[in-house]
Amino acid sequence: MKISARNSMEGVIKEIKKGEVAATVKVEVTKPSTITSMITREAIEALGLKEGQKVKVLIKSTEVMIAVD
Amino acid sequence: MKISARNSMEGVIKEIKKGEVAATVKVEVTKPSTITSMITREAIEALGLKEGQKVKVLIKSTEVMIAVD
Amino acid sequence: MKISARNSMEGVIKEIKKGEVAATVKVEVTKPSTITSMITREAIEALGLKEGQKVKVLIKSTEVMIAVD
Amino acid sequence: MKISARNSMEGVIKEIKKGEVAATVKVEVTKPSTITSMITREAIEALGLKEGQKVKVLIKSTEVMIAVD
Amino acid sequence: MKISARNSMEGVIKEIKKGEVAATVKVEVTKPSTITSMITREAIEALGLKEGQKVKVLIKSTEVMIAVD
Amino acid sequence: MKISARNSMEGVIKEIKKGEVAATVKVEVTKPSTITSMITREAIEALGLKEGQKVKVLIKSTEVMIAVD
Repeated sequence: MKISARNSMEGVIKEIKKGEVAATVKVEVTKPSTITSMITREAIEALGLKEGQKVKVLIKSTEVMIAVD
Repeated sequence: MKISARNSMEGVIKEIKKGEVAATVKVEVTKPSTITSMITREAIEALGLKEGQKVKVLIKSTEVMIAVD
Repeated sequence: MKISARNSMEGVIKEIKKGEVAATVKVEVTKPSTITSMITREAIEALGLKEGQKVKVLIKSTEVMIAVD
Repeated sequence: MKISARNSMEGVIKEIKKGEVAATVKVEVTKPSTITSMITREAIEALGLKEGQKVKVLIKSTEVMIAVD
Repeated sequence: MKISARNSMEGVIKEIKKGEVAATVKVEVTKPSTITSMITREAIEALGLKEGQKVKVLIKSTEVMIAVD
Repeated sequence: MKISARNSMEGVIKEIKKGEVAATVKVEVTKPSTITSMITREAIEALGLKEGQKVKVLIKSTEVMIAVD
């Protein structure tokens, strides 16, 4: 299956915490590839983003999916 | 500033593509840390997720933010 | 009220599971209409998406809202 | 591949509109299954949601992914 | 219509920028009410969040919907 | 730190509810600024959005982050 989500990283589950309906999974990423971010053009200009620049990538936990083969 | 988003990775911008209002930024991640994912408890059981298991992390590009110091 | 969310499906609640702060609702969809997806142009090319093609639509549970009249 | 996203629907692409970096895909869903929604427990009580109730499912286009085999 | 999204603010559109498929809308919020955020319990502890504390609320533009009566 | 998320509002935490893994935080917003929303161009036309129009901004709780200095 190919999927439109542009970001996929392999890793190993380090910890699972289960609530009644929600749960968190911590994955130690072993082979990161390039991360694609879609943001407003305005944000690029406001932050002065340039190719080659060092940045931080932020992702809210509720947006992260887990897949297994 | 500390932020509630549990996932943060440092990297270098490899490519910026600008549309009129949207834009994509590709970031090569250099020092990945552990990724936290919040999913339903049901997904954990349906996929049989276990600590130590090899998995794939998937993140839709529209959910990825960029931060600079 | 009209809302900018492009996807709306009528259905019947089959199951509600309540945690302390989170809860899941399962809805059996009865009259699906067309689903709109906004993705990167790159994903369209990477997957070779074409009009008329059979695909799968994937939506993380945390992104699904419920509305009642 | 199994994925933690709880919602998956098969369908046919009716229309693709491409911008410079963003694009929209309209998918006519042919075999809908049950949709899982994770919301706050407070929302369930504020809306008075009950099993068996008729509701509307709302999903913002930017949250919808496309997958192909 | 009542909706499970817990955050709703009235405002006036100040600017609309249209791309080919994406667009941004800037809304000047006039009567803000309380904002509800669902995050991991871990984030609450990592940030030391307490009732009465002054904080910043952050929301990615792609997550913001617009509704009209 | 500057961040690509276009929406940021200062406020005071009124209530924290903790589940086992998820939690909700209610923030009373004190100095709202303009909210940026990225939606499909189609939604703008379907709702007939115009600069100067009175609208409602809707945000699902799972999309709201909290930051502290």
